[in-house]
Amino acid sequence: MEDITMKNPQILLARRPQGAPVPEDFRLVESPMPEPGEGEVLVRHRFLSLDPYQRGRMDDAKSYAAPVALGGVMECQAVGQVAASRDSRFREGDWVLGGFGWQGFSVRPGKALIPIDPAEAPPSTALGVLGMPGLTAWVGLEDIGQPKAGETLVVSAASGAVGQVAGQLGKLRGARVVGIAGGAAKGAFVRDTLGFDAAIDHRGDLDAQLDAACPAGIDVYWENVGGEVQAAVFPRLNDFGRMVMCGMIAQYNTAAGAAATGAMPGPNLGPVVRKRLRIQGFIVSDTGWRRYGAFRAEMLGHLREGRLHWKEDVAQGLAAAPQAFIGMLAGRNFGKQVVAVE
Amino acid sequence: MEDITMKNPQILLARRPQGAPVPEDFRLVESPMPEPGEGEVLVRHRFLSLDPYQRGRMDDAKSYAAPVALGGVMECQAVGQVAASRDSRFREGDWVLGGFGWQGFSVRPGKALIPIDPAEAPPSTALGVLGMPGLTAWVGLEDIGQPKAGETLVVSAASGAVGQVAGQLGKLRGARVVGIAGGAAKGAFVRDTLGFDAAIDHRGDLDAQLDAACPAGIDVYWENVGGEVQAAVFPRLNDFGRMVMCGMIAQYNTAAGAAATGAMPGPNLGPVVRKRLRIQGFIVSDTGWRRYGAFRAEMLGHLREGRLHWKEDVAQGLAAAPQAFIGMLAGRNFGKQVVAVE
Repeated sequence: MEDITMKNPQILLARRPQGAPVPEDFRLVESPMPEPGEGEVLVRHRFLSLDPYQRGRMDDAKSYAAPVALGGVMECQAVGQVAASRDSRFREGDWVLGGFGWQGFSVRPGKALIPIDPAEAPPSTALGVLGMPGLTAWVGLEDIGQPKAGETLVVSAASGAVGQVAGQLGKLRGARVVGIAGGAAKGAFVRDTLGFDAAIDHRGDLDAQLDAACPAGIDVYWENVGGEVQAAVFPRLNDFGRMVMCGMIAQYNTAAGAAATGAMPGPNLGPVVRKRLRIQGFIVSDTGWRRYGAFRAEMLGHLREGRLHWKEDVAQGLAAAPQAFIGMLAGRNFGKQVVAVE
Repeated sequence: MEDITMKNPQILLARRPQGAPVPEDFRLVESPMPEPGEGEVLVRHRFLSLDPYQRGRMDDAKSYAAPVALGGVMECQAVGQVAASRDSRFREGDWVLGGFGWQGFSVRPGKALIPIDPAEAPPSTALGVLGMPGLTAWVGLEDIGQPKAGETLVVSAASGAVGQVAGQLGKLRGARVVGIAGGAAKGAFVRDTLGFDAAIDHRGDLDAQLDAACPAGIDVYWENVGGEVQAAVFPRLNDFGRMVMCGMIAQYNTAAGAAATGAMPGPNLGPVVRKRLRIQGFIVSDTGWRRYGAFRAEMLGHLREGRLHWKEDVAQGLAAAPQAFIGMLAGRNFGKQVVAVE
């Protein structure tokens, strides 16, 4: 049982960002420790997941999910350990997953918790390769990308949480996989550790690098970034090419906010007809969780066979979360961004 | 047997157009009457089909089909009657369909001809509602648009060959259908004869008209035109909206030609992620003809029940074909554009 005189540290949304978030948009407070009622569980958070979609939740704009309220706790998935349980299914020390938010502790109904087996894989992978980002990669390739053996798959933000998995799954499906990432270290990781066929630095000459890495054009483009990378990839799509529209992080911080993106022009869609392209967006929560079993079965198989690699960027302590989040939106993270709660 | 001292009038591609085609890009010549060899048939053309895709064939640019050669006969589908047969399956007077081109007569192997039953429907419908344009509408709705009961389908170039059928099939599938066409007469036809729920004049205030005609937003957009119409429709697409990318006639005449359309910007694709949009192009010839039986069965059923209407714009005489084609690209046709060969 935790000491209930302890406080619960929380990071709140202090104000809605104008463009890129700054530290002043967040506020760290100490709140009273919540107490579990009958059927509820107190969870001590161990790892928080920072993901680009959380930028959208900071805006008061129409989107697929409600925004975080001003003064509300920032949202995220997290893994933690049961600190006190009034649900007979959970005991102190059990690892669980849930939408716990940027805070040290939370109380949840036992039935809302997803148990995690730490013997199967390190618990933080439930936020990455075995969690929402991994599932995102799997769903997008199953439903839209559908890379076939011999096709060329280009993945942007390739060293990030989703990109890592999308590219590795593409390789496992027989595609030639080219990753786009920022800088030599990320490129080397993508190529040497993840086993992509080639890596491209988006800070360099995109056209020349794409020509060299994709001599047979591009069949599938995994879109995480938008902007100049999208503009360089689009004209290189082959007939029947697919664009898996997962995110466009390059414009999440535009002054008008994530939702109002109509102002910046995109590609002329004429080639969509001529080349029979398919440009399709998706949100993992629409259908992903009800297919989680199939995803998990495949991923655990790859994991056991040593075919799946991942990299986490771990920020230390809850207070580091805002800067880690700001850095991630600017591409300064290297791997799946998590926060180790102390 | 035709009089073989007769000449065969032909319209050739005299030069590749710079932007919109002009009469000087075509040349009318009188060529020797072709003679059928063993197994071949001489066809006297009755109706030629003029379709926007033929503009692309005039450019020497990479596309899904080879261009017409300079000095070659302009390509088109046509229906005609057998004038002389050296294939026992065909007799003089039989109606047939084929890729006969802009000319008065042609010789084809009997096995390349598609027989038409004039008792079933007027032969020119094999170029329209029962032919390639109708099949295009059917395939695009089956594969991409998939309008459901109660959804809103917006069709551009709604009084044209493909738009007429796309909208009527949308109604038959239970959708609310809004047609976009140029001018009051086309609007009245779309609403009153074809039975669309509303018609919009693209020469008027598109935003205001779309707001009024689509109070619940747009679920499916049938894209025939591109340009300003696309720009007005795109932000009104609902979550899970589909864009059936059939054509973008508004830019076929750009100086750089139909293929090089990358210069004009299109919509920013941010909403594709957030709204889970699907933007997909198709070419009817990829899969359409092998599904022609299913299409024809459905269409003949509608035809017999009086549920299917159509309108043709008939230019008189082969010599009128270039002006009719030029007019069609500028939207001056009213209905499926054909040429009655005299």
